[in-house]
Amino acid sequence: MASIEQNLGVGVIGCGYWGPNLVRNFAKQEHARVVSVCDARYERALKVAGEFRIDHVTEQPDALIANPAVDLVIVATPSFSHYELAKRALEAGKHVLVMKPLTTRVDHAEELVSLAERQGVVLAVDHTFVYTGAVRRMRELVESGELGDIYYLDSVRINLGLFQADVNVIWDLAPHDISIIDYVLGGELPTEVSAVGASHAGSPTENIAYVTMRYGPHTLAHVHVNWLAPAKVRRTIIGGSRQMVIYDDMEPSEKLKIYDKGVTITQQSGTDEVYGQLVSYRSGDMRAPKLDMREALTTEAEHVLHCIRTGERPRADGQAGLRTVRILEAAQHSIANGTRSRTARRSSQ
Amino acid sequence: MASIEQNLGVGVIGCGYWGPNLVRNFAKQEHARVVSVCDARYERALKVAGEFRIDHVTEQPDALIANPAVDLVIVATPSFSHYELAKRALEAGKHVLVMKPLTTRVDHAEELVSLAERQGVVLAVDHTFVYTGAVRRMRELVESGELGDIYYLDSVRINLGLFQADVNVIWDLAPHDISIIDYVLGGELPTEVSAVGASHAGSPTENIAYVTMRYGPHTLAHVHVNWLAPAKVRRTIIGGSRQMVIYDDMEPSEKLKIYDKGVTITQQSGTDEVYGQLVSYRSGDMRAPKLDMREALTTEAEHVLHCIRTGERPRADGQAGLRTVRILEAAQHSIANGTRSRTARRSSQ
Amino acid sequence: MASIEQNLGVGVIGCGYWGPNLVRNFAKQEHARVVSVCDARYERALKVAGEFRIDHVTEQPDALIANPAVDLVIVATPSFSHYELAKRALEAGKHVLVMKPLTTRVDHAEELVSLAERQGVVLAVDHTFVYTGAVRRMRELVESGELGDIYYLDSVRINLGLFQADVNVIWDLAPHDISIIDYVLGGELPTEVSAVGASHAGSPTENIAYVTMRYGPHTLAHVHVNWLAPAKVRRTIIGGSRQMVIYDDMEPSEKLKIYDKGVTITQQSGTDEVYGQLVSYRSGDMRAPKLDMREALTTEAEHVLHCIRTGERPRADGQAGLRTVRILEAAQHSIANGTRSRTARRSSQ
Amino acid sequence: MASIEQNLGVGVIGCGYWGPNLVRNFAKQEHARVVSVCDARYERALKVAGEFRIDHVTEQPDALIANPAVDLVIVATPSFSHYELAKRALEAGKHVLVMKPLTTRVDHAEELVSLAERQGVVLAVDHTFVYTGAVRRMRELVESGELGDIYYLDSVRINLGLFQADVNVIWDLAPHDISIIDYVLGGELPTEVSAVGASHAGSPTENIAYVTMRYGPHTLAHVHVNWLAPAKVRRTIIGGSRQMVIYDDMEPSEKLKIYDKGVTITQQSGTDEVYGQLVSYRSGDMRAPKLDMREALTTEAEHVLHCIRTGERPRADGQAGLRTVRILEAAQHSIANGTRSRTARRSSQ
Repeated sequence: MASIEQNLGVGVIGCGYWGPNLVRNFAKQEHARVVSVCDARYERALKVAGEFRIDHVTEQPDALIANPAVDLVIVATPSFSHYELAKRALEAGKHVLVMKPLTTRVDHAEELVSLAERQGVVLAVDHTFVYTGAVRRMRELVESGELGDIYYLDSVRINLGLFQADVNVIWDLAPHDISIIDYVLGGELPTEVSAVGASHAGSPTENIAYVTMRYGPHTLAHVHVNWLAPAKVRRTIIGGSRQMVIYDDMEPSEKLKIYDKGVTITQQSGTDEVYGQLVSYRSGDMRAPKLDMREALTTEAEHVLHCIRTGERPRADGQAGLRTVRILEAAQHSIANGTRSRTARRSSQ
Repeated sequence: MASIEQNLGVGVIGCGYWGPNLVRNFAKQEHARVVSVCDARYERALKVAGEFRIDHVTEQPDALIANPAVDLVIVATPSFSHYELAKRALEAGKHVLVMKPLTTRVDHAEELVSLAERQGVVLAVDHTFVYTGAVRRMRELVESGELGDIYYLDSVRINLGLFQADVNVIWDLAPHDISIIDYVLGGELPTEVSAVGASHAGSPTENIAYVTMRYGPHTLAHVHVNWLAPAKVRRTIIGGSRQMVIYDDMEPSEKLKIYDKGVTITQQSGTDEVYGQLVSYRSGDMRAPKLDMREALTTEAEHVLHCIRTGERPRADGQAGLRTVRILEAAQHSIANGTRSRTARRSSQ
Repeated sequence: MASIEQNLGVGVIGCGYWGPNLVRNFAKQEHARVVSVCDARYERALKVAGEFRIDHVTEQPDALIANPAVDLVIVATPSFSHYELAKRALEAGKHVLVMKPLTTRVDHAEELVSLAERQGVVLAVDHTFVYTGAVRRMRELVESGELGDIYYLDSVRINLGLFQADVNVIWDLAPHDISIIDYVLGGELPTEVSAVGASHAGSPTENIAYVTMRYGPHTLAHVHVNWLAPAKVRRTIIGGSRQMVIYDDMEPSEKLKIYDKGVTITQQSGTDEVYGQLVSYRSGDMRAPKLDMREALTTEAEHVLHCIRTGERPRADGQAGLRTVRILEAAQHSIANGTRSRTARRSSQ
Repeated sequence: MASIEQNLGVGVIGCGYWGPNLVRNFAKQEHARVVSVCDARYERALKVAGEFRIDHVTEQPDALIANPAVDLVIVATPSFSHYELAKRALEAGKHVLVMKPLTTRVDHAEELVSLAERQGVVLAVDHTFVYTGAVRRMRELVESGELGDIYYLDSVRINLGLFQADVNVIWDLAPHDISIIDYVLGGELPTEVSAVGASHAGSPTENIAYVTMRYGPHTLAHVHVNWLAPAKVRRTIIGGSRQMVIYDDMEPSEKLKIYDKGVTITQQSGTDEVYGQLVSYRSGDMRAPKLDMREALTTEAEHVLHCIRTGERPRADGQAGLRTVRILEAAQHSIANGTRSRTARRSSQ
């Protein structure tokens, strides 16, 4: 394993769309080196290795995992293989960073979390958006109480996307929204999850879905994901009792707008009839704070390496990955059965 | 009753926010005269009467209904009183235009529809948006098959609105979205309705809600209504197999954008694994057609008077009002019981 | 003339597009009454009089001016007649509010200003935008020094407008931009004015024009007006050394955005080569302050009546009207002669 | 020199901001190889050479030019050195691609054009935007007559940019707008150029400027460039007698909107007074055509290589570069002298 003095060795399994981005971002970190890449399609791995001058190229994940120069294994393969590969890497005593979703089953995610703890290594999940300046700021606004009580979170992520055969739109897109909501709310599990969806154009899996979550007695969260929309929307609204926020990721600048708007209850009447008159609306200034505009993956790479060195928990750790998988699985279950599901079996998670 | 040769006499019950708009729009119609206004707050009725030189002013709805000069009674009072007032007007043989929602109970709406049929008079509902150029065009796009199969309709109507004591946000805002969807789909009833919502800031009723409807085996409709949002959004997306539409009512011009985007299935494979490769995406031109930009209420007033004269069914008739109330009641029931409800008891409605 | 105790009597000459708006706004003022309306097309005057229950209707401006119940004469006729009508009203000792532009010649405007002073009455100009919350706030930002040194003002006002026979686009649209700039800068005259323009589609007058003004040694102001544009733009940018502002009148809310952006010169080098390295850019927060969203004409009516009562100078007084006409005339001269003109003959104005 | 059968050798002088982009785009062309890079700051050249595996690295432009493997010399150095370096490369018989502006003096540009003709080699200028799908489409709309007579072109290019010591904002940003206008209008020279500008924040050169050009008797073109603006705007409007276009480069999709709007003169009256009544406005549909969204530099690299092989003239050839420099020099002259300048000395250019 790496000591403080030396560079951390990074190995990346999966050189499809996302893998090379990870290689690029880890490659430019000061105290890390990408030492091995792997892809079942060998020529892909070779191409990436060539571009970034990586010595070890393999089509065998086990060869990468076994490479003693590799301290951190990054799993950037299709979802269904995350569990198996992460497990083997953890068993080999390696730190692991897994793409979202962590796994496709809750029990698998639980097993990985336990395994990482037993092994004393870092298990991180690539919840990219929690490493953006905008989501970081939203967390600060919630944590500091500036927004007041959180009434609702409404997140929309739609575009004309690629239909996928192995996962539906919930497992593909909603991990972004769910991990944002999870991070902003401080890692709480929802008390209830329900979802509806539909599949079209002959797709075997859902291409549009709506997921509803309840956090505690008052907070309602809702996610709309859609692979078949005419325009690209990526927008999260948070309604608080004191302030409200719109995070629009499609805005070139001013991605986050904080509104000094809300409702003040001056006095609760005994009769419903006069209720309306006792609510007063505040409609004040809007501000768009300057945000850290660095690429999220750069921040993430730096942060994960920092956690490996110091033993700090990653901002998106195995627990965050597990919570997200719990919600995804509950949403899937709700779609399949037409019911609302409970997720919170253990308050510790 | 009015003959073709003479002006129709119009009476308006309710001079709150919306009533005066109706008076103004009916007052400017060529073959109609507003002859009576009524409000329990007499000075309000008097003010409207003064502005539009209306002879008969009363605080008694029955006096307005009984006025022989009144051919059409417009009910612009709070929702809970719609049924009672419309019923009395219909019983008196008057034509009736009721603000949305038609009633607050399905059985009441059914009764009004039957009563109007028995009396041989027009029962119209103020589903304002179906009289806009944009919604009219959407109906034409669906009806002509230009959009292809309708995969989904997603409607968002949120703003910092007035909390109301007697109705929740579903009964207040969703009638707009539901009546748009109803009109665009040709008056079909959904096979399933479910809803979730939450109340905040001490409100006794829901201030945020999500309503889901299924139409036939393939079409998913979803409505997001919210009184507590930092920005005003009024946007309906329709996803079809051939084209897609975004109707953004906040756009000053170009409210309707039609996208030549979609998915083409070239061949269905026997195995899921290769599914993704057989879907091909079309991403073509967008066009924003020139729309009739007249005020919807003006078109509506003209249309309702035309229907009274000719016996045609109004674009938004009692049946449309009833279908909307069915969905609202089912949504309310779903929120209260946490279940999904069926609405379609009779295929004729 | 009116004393404090009694209502001011208002007479409006011109019942075209803008006149009725003025009538409506003065009619709702507490201590004023519209007592007379005049239009050469008698039926227009009659229609307005009917709507607002105005006793005196005439097609003779002199009859309105002579009416002893009229304290304030509002001139809402085509530009070429402003001078003659305002002059007669001032000579009759009446207060006068003239639509923009005050006159079509500088000497005429000078004469009206002098005449009003001699008569001791109020001469106000309908520079509507200086009565908006947004422009008021821009003035405060400049006056307080929050923006720092004013480097430039860039104003664009374009749309598919009505070609007019008697005035070109500069006299029609630019008074808005010029009066905004004049007010924001505190009533200073530019030291130089130049303009270019072109006429198309067989129009005898310019339908597109660009006007450039210099204020003092450093401030550059520029106005783009255009009757033949595919979209409506109404946007003024102010660049200051400390902060910058975008005023976008087409935004439904957040019309004014204040950017904490600018340039800081840390040290001036002796050689040009290294200049770039000594400039540091600030790129900070943006804020959109809550603005007074009342209709500008309402504020204007209230303000003009207040000035008549108290003797205060109107925010847009005859001098402001005269300065604007000076610039318009200089711009016109520049277009005709292809030269740059000086406007500032007297520093007092 | 390269024959059809073999790869073209490319050498790039200047490895600052833009040079590496050019290297990347030429490196991925099928029939070209970047064989040499040069920068006075040797380590910069070395870094680029390393990334793209380029064999020859030098800090001496003459060494690169003399390299027999180099067929095409790309000059990506500061503007003042373009002439000298391009001249030496042309004299050595190499094809040359020069960044914008081609030179900083008209006589220099004329000399390069002549020299390239004498040598029988390609001289191309990096007018990047003419290689975008949007500008290409604008050219087609003008050429085909779809827009009708071109009334005006209005181009705005503003942002918070880097102050530069050696050039002002006109020479830095306006080449983009001028080359777009030049290409869209088919390579015509304006009959008149004038400009105004101002320098602020202690800058020795203009940081804001407005350039006006006239093309023939009717077409007015106007360019606003600004290094000190709070928001980034890149927008060109073209007003034609039949249709109008807005090209907004900041739009993520739908960069080009074509409006079926315009003016129709039904009959020209003999008297000005009734002119307004004879103009009729058309306000029809808007459409946003699907555009080629490839990176402009990729298209450019491919095109320049194609021209070298086939002897075709590049879309942006030396003549286009010369015309742009003529306009820039005339604008500079106008700012310095406060006059309007003529550019068109020879109709052939």
